[in-house]
Amino acid sequence: MNITRLSTRDTDFDAKLSKLLAFEETADEKLEATVAAILSDVKKRGDAAVLDYTRKFDRLPLADAAAMELPKSELQAAFEGLPAAQRTALERAAQRVTSYHQKQVQSSWTYLDDDGTMLGQQVTPLDRVGLYVPGGKAAYPSSVLMNALPAKVAGVAELIMVVPTPDGVKNQLVLAAAHLSGVDRVFTIGGAQAVAALAYGTASIPTVDKIVGPGNAYVASAKRRVFGACGIDMIAGPSEILVICDGQTNPDWVAMDLFSQAEHDELAQAILLSPDAAFIEAVAASADKLLEQMPRKEIIKTALENRGALIHVADLDEACDISNRIAPEHLELSVADPQSMLPKLKHAGAIFMGRYTSESLGDYCAGPNHVLPTSGTARFSSPLGVYDFQKRSSLIQVSAQGAQTLGAIAAELAFGEGLQAHAQSALFRKNA
Amino acid sequence: MNITRLSTRDTDFDAKLSKLLAFEETADEKLEATVAAILSDVKKRGDAAVLDYTRKFDRLPLADAAAMELPKSELQAAFEGLPAAQRTALERAAQRVTSYHQKQVQSSWTYLDDDGTMLGQQVTPLDRVGLYVPGGKAAYPSSVLMNALPAKVAGVAELIMVVPTPDGVKNQLVLAAAHLSGVDRVFTIGGAQAVAALAYGTASIPTVDKIVGPGNAYVASAKRRVFGACGIDMIAGPSEILVICDGQTNPDWVAMDLFSQAEHDELAQAILLSPDAAFIEAVAASADKLLEQMPRKEIIKTALENRGALIHVADLDEACDISNRIAPEHLELSVADPQSMLPKLKHAGAIFMGRYTSESLGDYCAGPNHVLPTSGTARFSSPLGVYDFQKRSSLIQVSAQGAQTLGAIAAELAFGEGLQAHAQSALFRKNA
Repeated sequence: MNITRLSTRDTDFDAKLSKLLAFEETADEKLEATVAAILSDVKKRGDAAVLDYTRKFDRLPLADAAAMELPKSELQAAFEGLPAAQRTALERAAQRVTSYHQKQVQSSWTYLDDDGTMLGQQVTPLDRVGLYVPGGKAAYPSSVLMNALPAKVAGVAELIMVVPTPDGVKNQLVLAAAHLSGVDRVFTIGGAQAVAALAYGTASIPTVDKIVGPGNAYVASAKRRVFGACGIDMIAGPSEILVICDGQTNPDWVAMDLFSQAEHDELAQAILLSPDAAFIEAVAASADKLLEQMPRKEIIKTALENRGALIHVADLDEACDISNRIAPEHLELSVADPQSMLPKLKHAGAIFMGRYTSESLGDYCAGPNHVLPTSGTARFSSPLGVYDFQKRSSLIQVSAQGAQTLGAIAAELAFGEGLQAHAQSALFRKNA
Repeated sequence: MNITRLSTRDTDFDAKLSKLLAFEETADEKLEATVAAILSDVKKRGDAAVLDYTRKFDRLPLADAAAMELPKSELQAAFEGLPAAQRTALERAAQRVTSYHQKQVQSSWTYLDDDGTMLGQQVTPLDRVGLYVPGGKAAYPSSVLMNALPAKVAGVAELIMVVPTPDGVKNQLVLAAAHLSGVDRVFTIGGAQAVAALAYGTASIPTVDKIVGPGNAYVASAKRRVFGACGIDMIAGPSEILVICDGQTNPDWVAMDLFSQAEHDELAQAILLSPDAAFIEAVAASADKLLEQMPRKEIIKTALENRGALIHVADLDEACDISNRIAPEHLELSVADPQSMLPKLKHAGAIFMGRYTSESLGDYCAGPNHVLPTSGTARFSSPLGVYDFQKRSSLIQVSAQGAQTLGAIAAELAFGEGLQAHAQSALFRKNA
């Protein structure tokens, strides 16, 4: 494989790094128009429109709207029908993910200030959440767990899953994961029409307050467009991994970690930073050796050759600086003392620390979420979590005494802003 | 004034309420095209483009790019030049807002599981935040405090403010508030060109990680478009208040509270819910009486007549149900026992409890933020807070022992998903 080699000592390193990281989604006007038409049609015709699109795009001859919903017994049967090892693995993963996310639950709080005014915030779960799960090849049961469990931990009352089943083909692992995660209802619809149904509601499909979960370009466009009618999670770009290695990890391990990102799709980005030039070549040799045994070798090769890089750095401190510039989705610290690097790392979706912590362990079962900010958005965004399924209402209860002092301040500032009703409303209380 | 009266006993109440709440932003294609062109021009030409647009739109004859920045001494002078009462009011408000928001600071945490694997999350502030402040009439110093202080409390290292100064007119209260809030740099630019400068950076204006603050339709469109390059706060719709009153509050107070929302703009929405029909008419009479003394009476009248409503409800429980359906930005509980209503209230930006708690006290100085979710988005969004200026990175450090158990689970699930590199990467650690 011909993977790009860079060195921070290159005179034009900054420009080369920028070029490597550059990724701009191209706007597809035809797709946008199609999605806009589907959303508007579902808004207008409801179930009838959803049925039409599902018959057309998924070749699913649904008799009526009721046929879109899967009975819960089918989810349970899928779960019970799994091979024992798979069922146990899914259960253990769900337990660990639940247990981690329980630490994220926020609680309401209040306090009294000196003049008896109560201030606080009330934390409540969202009422109803929609979970989009892709059909076909990219149907990942782990993704069902990672999206559904934080919502359940947050206390969301109702979780509605949509999953397209083109030609009627159902993914048993996905249905089993839905059962295990406590998904309340499942509809076998997908695409922009499913997003529209969740956002606007139909006679059969209830309106949700937020839509989460990955999807193709149609789904992403639909989510962007319904934002406001309901909430959405982030729109993910291609997946990325940055591995920082001191040169002391088995090069086969590091090469396979780069592969595990690259195998997702041709646009995935896998980058290694190391101060050890010989180690970089050892990883490249491992990659060449290991590639042949990979069923997805063509995807891996394309991703690594087009978007991957092996970068020689001066030392681990410089590696941290570059990592902060990249703000990677996944950051592996394959070093002897990862703890000492933490204070220097400002932006990353998830940090996998130490030689034993492959990204894949975190993807499936360590506990933290695998839905992470991509394309440098870790500069300002966070992993999916319980936070995304709770919301806060500020609480203010001003005492009679507080109304004196606060009324004077508010009136002064309101007059300064030319908002006399605001001022008057404060003065009524002050002078009561 | 002719304010709409509704009753939940009306047979078509649901439909009438839906119609009252309906608000759809109309897409303005010409505006969108203008904004797209400005963004692309600033991305390409940087400072030169920003200077051109500022000269054109704000009639500001800037000599060069350096002239866009205000010296910090000018902010300090503005603060020191305020009348003492105004300066003190601003200081007291800033203290209270800071003190409330300090309670929102999130800290990093970690824990060890049974097999010695460390899990946790590292919380870090955003590096650099841009604060948009509108120029002209809608220039509110309180808004500077509410946007800047949570960022400072979160630990954001650098806060960049942009504020247009059309024809060179500067708002001294706004500059004073910037000084008080610890804003680091101020540029006298606005509109889509300012948003573009913050999002993409120019030679003179540094790239920020997130842009917050209100603005007109051009600013809102620009913020939507740069989202992804940087983070943005919510895009606010027209402001709203819902007052629930048991009929025992002075009707003048309630009428003035409705006015204080209505005076913002003609599209603002003010609604009263009360089980006391006579009280509703008393509030209407107060409104007629008080309107004449209001400098902004035309705006108030238009807003109340077009989008306001006085709604007769069966009881306070029913009022809570309707409030949950509306998910109001501001919710006033002008009742004897507001605490007892809290458990029934699921969705609201801020809840103002008791007869003394006018919304205006919360807008300026009670402590909580006045940037709140509008148009029913309180179903899934929260007030602006320290949370919006911090982000989380998941931490995972798997022990040698943990790699045995987690490796087995991850490999089983990865094989199930057809991701062999993920599985192999986990097995390398398991079998080490």
